[in-house]
Amino acid sequence: MTAARPGCLDTRAVFWLKHPAMDMHPLLAGITPQARNEPDSGILVAVNRGFGRPNVIPLWAGEGNVPTPELFARAASESLLKGETFYTWQRGIPKLREALARYHTRHFGRSFSHENFFVTSGGMQAIQTMVQMVAGEGDEIVLPTPAWPNYGGPLRIQGSVPVEVPMDFSNGRWQLDLDRLFAAISLRTRAICLNSPSNPVGWTATLDELIAVRDQCRKRGIWIFGDEVYSRFYYGPRGETRAPSFLDICDDEEMLLLANTFSKNWAMTGWRVGWLQAPKILGPAIERIIQYNTSGTPAFLQRGCVAALDHGEEFLTGQVAKARANRDMTAKFLSEMPQVRFEIPKGAFYMFFAVDGMKDSTKTTLRLIDEAGVGFAPGATFGKGGEGHLRMCFLSDPTKIEEALGRFGNWLKTARL
Amino acid sequence: MTAARPGCLDTRAVFWLKHPAMDMHPLLAGITPQARNEPDSGILVAVNRGFGRPNVIPLWAGEGNVPTPELFARAASESLLKGETFYTWQRGIPKLREALARYHTRHFGRSFSHENFFVTSGGMQAIQTMVQMVAGEGDEIVLPTPAWPNYGGPLRIQGSVPVEVPMDFSNGRWQLDLDRLFAAISLRTRAICLNSPSNPVGWTATLDELIAVRDQCRKRGIWIFGDEVYSRFYYGPRGETRAPSFLDICDDEEMLLLANTFSKNWAMTGWRVGWLQAPKILGPAIERIIQYNTSGTPAFLQRGCVAALDHGEEFLTGQVAKARANRDMTAKFLSEMPQVRFEIPKGAFYMFFAVDGMKDSTKTTLRLIDEAGVGFAPGATFGKGGEGHLRMCFLSDPTKIEEALGRFGNWLKTARL
Repeated sequence: MTAARPGCLDTRAVFWLKHPAMDMHPLLAGITPQARNEPDSGILVAVNRGFGRPNVIPLWAGEGNVPTPELFARAASESLLKGETFYTWQRGIPKLREALARYHTRHFGRSFSHENFFVTSGGMQAIQTMVQMVAGEGDEIVLPTPAWPNYGGPLRIQGSVPVEVPMDFSNGRWQLDLDRLFAAISLRTRAICLNSPSNPVGWTATLDELIAVRDQCRKRGIWIFGDEVYSRFYYGPRGETRAPSFLDICDDEEMLLLANTFSKNWAMTGWRVGWLQAPKILGPAIERIIQYNTSGTPAFLQRGCVAALDHGEEFLTGQVAKARANRDMTAKFLSEMPQVRFEIPKGAFYMFFAVDGMKDSTKTTLRLIDEAGVGFAPGATFGKGGEGHLRMCFLSDPTKIEEALGRFGNWLKTARL
Repeated sequence: MTAARPGCLDTRAVFWLKHPAMDMHPLLAGITPQARNEPDSGILVAVNRGFGRPNVIPLWAGEGNVPTPELFARAASESLLKGETFYTWQRGIPKLREALARYHTRHFGRSFSHENFFVTSGGMQAIQTMVQMVAGEGDEIVLPTPAWPNYGGPLRIQGSVPVEVPMDFSNGRWQLDLDRLFAAISLRTRAICLNSPSNPVGWTATLDELIAVRDQCRKRGIWIFGDEVYSRFYYGPRGETRAPSFLDICDDEEMLLLANTFSKNWAMTGWRVGWLQAPKILGPAIERIIQYNTSGTPAFLQRGCVAALDHGEEFLTGQVAKARANRDMTAKFLSEMPQVRFEIPKGAFYMFFAVDGMKDSTKTTLRLIDEAGVGFAPGATFGKGGEGHLRMCFLSDPTKIEEALGRFGNWLKTARL
């Protein structure tokens, strides 16, 4: 057999050239390379391995252990049983958009208009909408990593490019080098994507850092993609009830798109309702994209979300207090494990810790599920700088967390990584 | 002022050249041309004009006038109040995928596997998933028109190209010229999109036509995008309970993707739950796309869908009987209007009728809402061959339909179109 040499192709040589579809099932060859080659989320790899197994303590996903408070669920249930089951406004029901404006007015000490809020089927759909509206084929979005994999995913699927700028983890601290972030901006860059407080590392931008990002985006004429989903889960030194926000320093009518969700604050992960905050003038474009993705969010679910915004503060305060206590307990346990290094997160509800000697976090995650009955998420799935780490959600029952950490610690003592 | 002439550019001339972003709000200039230039759905233009106005009879959208039966709603409500409010399987809960397999086994007289069914947040998300999985930038999808605008929309938004092949409306019949359809296939074509029974014209493919499409797609190595959402709303001559289907003639593991929904059959438009039927091997790719769009469909809603599949046959039979009677009544009324021409639809639940002398169906639709209190959808929004027509949904209260047709007929007598 003669190998093909450049400049010396005959038909036999062409036959032996490696064609990407050659070893592939013809049905897989029929989908786009992006859809085919997109990696599975490591979080889902863990979930799909362990979901529903009674002996596994699931701390892989970003959700707590309590169901949605009955007050919110009942508002949705009543609307559903009353027959509010028809198509509804693509931008969200007016009552929910108004409740969102009220909620923001309360928490940011300035007034907001319902016209800047667009209800989506989850925070994920808010991100998808941002991506579809702003980034075309080959366009770039700059984002610090480790980051939730679901920013890069929707970009890659449509042929856009996430440009990862790894944060620094040194001296036990995660730091974002803003100069390095801004140096990654090219002529193809359409946005900086910033998640603060961040999933998975808990890094939280200071107001000065937000101002620097805003000013850079203004100067370059690019968008801010903000994800402030964990804004209320902020463990600030002065008892703040939320993290610094782009809403403190930006105009409502500038190049700012903010994704948010009911999932985290009000224990509504399974509802799939979120919102996008955006300039009013984008309303028709956002409406069209929402229509082409889901054609709106069930009106009866939105009734439950109104209840959460208007009557959910006490529940949320309790959740944040629980998260803070669990965080401190988790830090104490982990600090007793000599192979483990981490920063105590300033926000969100994840512990993202390095395990010395661990080369493949995905393999370790699967082994932990099978061998120790503990469900974490692999650091590798969070992009550059993530490998070597594991992520654990600590918004759960403290006794379960204690049990999980005990199992993990014991496993670690004898496991060959 | 000197106009710019080709080949004679100076800086002043360049200034006067029409740049697309020149007259544009800078925030609109910041989104992709596709997101900016995508037309509004004519259906939404009507809805946004008249939604909630008590004196308007709304027949613009594809939904009936009865809310979801309590039996289905209660199953969802119980699950919600019981606390089934956490993240769930991205492909859908196993119970619903199994119920889908059972339902299809009953209606197609052969066995189906749950592994070919993927739960989506509405039929629209099933279509979006197909589009994102198969079509890249510049890729083409061939589809007959008039067609629901939401096939072309998601393609255009991502830079793919819907290639419209207009059907023929002559001698009072809609016909699809298959030779013309196949002639539109190019090297960039990735799929033929076929909606049968069709929205808006009610055209329904015969088994022979489906076989011809299947064979052509097999020969060319392209996908079938099937939309059989209205399959059960079929007014066949022999009392059939469903229209001819690709499922009668295709393998489960071939290049066939079928979008479907709970909306139409079981009065669940506002629930936003549907499904995609696809080869098993695409499971991981579909799961990733679902994850990046909505991250799954609420588990508690899926419980209601299981109830609809398992206990919804009697309700559905009643809905189809009502649609058939309303169709015949509508045809009788419209046939008495001398300016109106139409074919009695073989399937779905729309009357799509030509109005002689009407030049702008969108304007007419808005005038009908304002001046006559009747809500139709403009034919122009359904693509090539649609202008000059109006669409009316007849799955409604017959007395309302009668009233609407009376108002329309009276308006038509004196209106200057």
